[in-house]
Amino acid sequence: MKTLVVGVGLIGGSFALALRKYGLSDSITGVESSPENAAEALRLGLVDRIVTLEEGAAEADLIVLAVPVDGIPLLAVKLLNKVRPTQTVMDMGSIKSELCEVISQHPNRDRFVATHPMWGTEYSGPSAARNDAFTGRTVVILERDRSAPDALVLVERIYDTIGMHKIYMDSGEDHDLHAAYVSHISHVTSFALALTVLEKEREEQHIFDLAGGGFESTVRLAKSSYKTWVPILLKNKYNVLDVLREHIHQLQIMRKMIETDDAEGLEKAMRRANSIQRIIK
Amino acid sequence: MKTLVVGVGLIGGSFALALRKYGLSDSITGVESSPENAAEALRLGLVDRIVTLEEGAAEADLIVLAVPVDGIPLLAVKLLNKVRPTQTVMDMGSIKSELCEVISQHPNRDRFVATHPMWGTEYSGPSAARNDAFTGRTVVILERDRSAPDALVLVERIYDTIGMHKIYMDSGEDHDLHAAYVSHISHVTSFALALTVLEKEREEQHIFDLAGGGFESTVRLAKSSYKTWVPILLKNKYNVLDVLREHIHQLQIMRKMIETDDAEGLEKAMRRANSIQRIIK
Repeated sequence: MKTLVVGVGLIGGSFALALRKYGLSDSITGVESSPENAAEALRLGLVDRIVTLEEGAAEADLIVLAVPVDGIPLLAVKLLNKVRPTQTVMDMGSIKSELCEVISQHPNRDRFVATHPMWGTEYSGPSAARNDAFTGRTVVILERDRSAPDALVLVERIYDTIGMHKIYMDSGEDHDLHAAYVSHISHVTSFALALTVLEKEREEQHIFDLAGGGFESTVRLAKSSYKTWVPILLKNKYNVLDVLREHIHQLQIMRKMIETDDAEGLEKAMRRANSIQRIIK
Repeated sequence: MKTLVVGVGLIGGSFALALRKYGLSDSITGVESSPENAAEALRLGLVDRIVTLEEGAAEADLIVLAVPVDGIPLLAVKLLNKVRPTQTVMDMGSIKSELCEVISQHPNRDRFVATHPMWGTEYSGPSAARNDAFTGRTVVILERDRSAPDALVLVERIYDTIGMHKIYMDSGEDHDLHAAYVSHISHVTSFALALTVLEKEREEQHIFDLAGGGFESTVRLAKSSYKTWVPILLKNKYNVLDVLREHIHQLQIMRKMIETDDAEGLEKAMRRANSIQRIIK
């Protein structure tokens, strides 16, 4: 099998590494708009060659879209316009409703498999690609009934081999709603927390000296790239705003309880928050 | 040297393990108000014996206070009331201004060393004690000029041996301010984030399936015990409220930018937030 990865950054690069590691692809080519990232991807051996989209798409059996989410829907349509019945196109984006809607009426819709592997780090670019990515995490596969059986089987087999746990959703809207709760909001709070501390704590040496593991883990995502996260937050605007409204509300409740020395209320809130450990190990 | 650890939980228990690991104490006794925790601390070998405060304090060369922060100041005074010139009392609490103020006029103030090792996890109780705790982290030593040279040297030598990086502060108020920025606020946001998700996402299976590493790390601290955190937040009330106000403000700015599709503003905010990586590796 020949694979083309479009966008050889953290996600596309890590996926290429996984394909190699498990011997899933005979050759891997890459499309990369940044010349620096293209050179770096070659140097790291993530892809065998950097090609143009046209050239790569003509040759490949599997075309993987791993560009920022605002670029995926149009790219999907352009590729489906020329796709052959033996080719499969898949994406790995974090936003699904717009994509599913845009390709819904395409005559070649069945050559597309829409997926979202729930893995990432706060780093970006080809040098952030990791060999142990994806394994043990969940991948969401969207609208599986809309994909041709052979295309679906190909993509499922890859994710199975990599060791991902598959779940299925029939609606891009549902996916984006849940993704706002369990992923996008964490990034917003982390960015805001970093800004808060940078705003309040003018003495950086103190942050450096004093920050324990707790601060590090809550602020880690604030290192994430705006290139990834501006499109995600804007494309999932209404869900993100809805969760953000609730989050600010919860913070205001806690603020009120601290203000009024409401130890009992705080205890109750914390004990309820503790129940997250039933869900997140 | 004989050591008494008062409060054999996450912090006291981990400190006892460190004393043993580095051969710093010939015997370690413990005071523990919870019978279950006392039995567990014995079973795990954190302490040799469970004793009463009176009995333990009479025997020990070093008395370590590792109870929740609201219990430390009074305990400190009671122990200083009976301390002998060869004994040292130290604490490991996260709040320092009230303690420093309460003991400031005590005739035996110089037998006390006020410290805050910047380490913790979201777990609590003796079973959460860890063998690799503290090492590589920072410990803040407060008002070192107020401690007798021999008491200070004893405590410093222990922290040096454990591998902590010492910094000094002359004011409990300063300490509490910085601690609010780099530790306490992280816990508030994490509790509020867990509550947000539990409120919005009624289908727990979805949280379980979809939560990636990002969510896990931002919500991890929400597993923390109210027994530790209610006293910390209330004892550091004004600093925490001040940082919390700024944090809510930053979230509201981000909300506004998402609402108005202000990609440029979001990019600028995220790039500024990214600069936290200069400080936190």
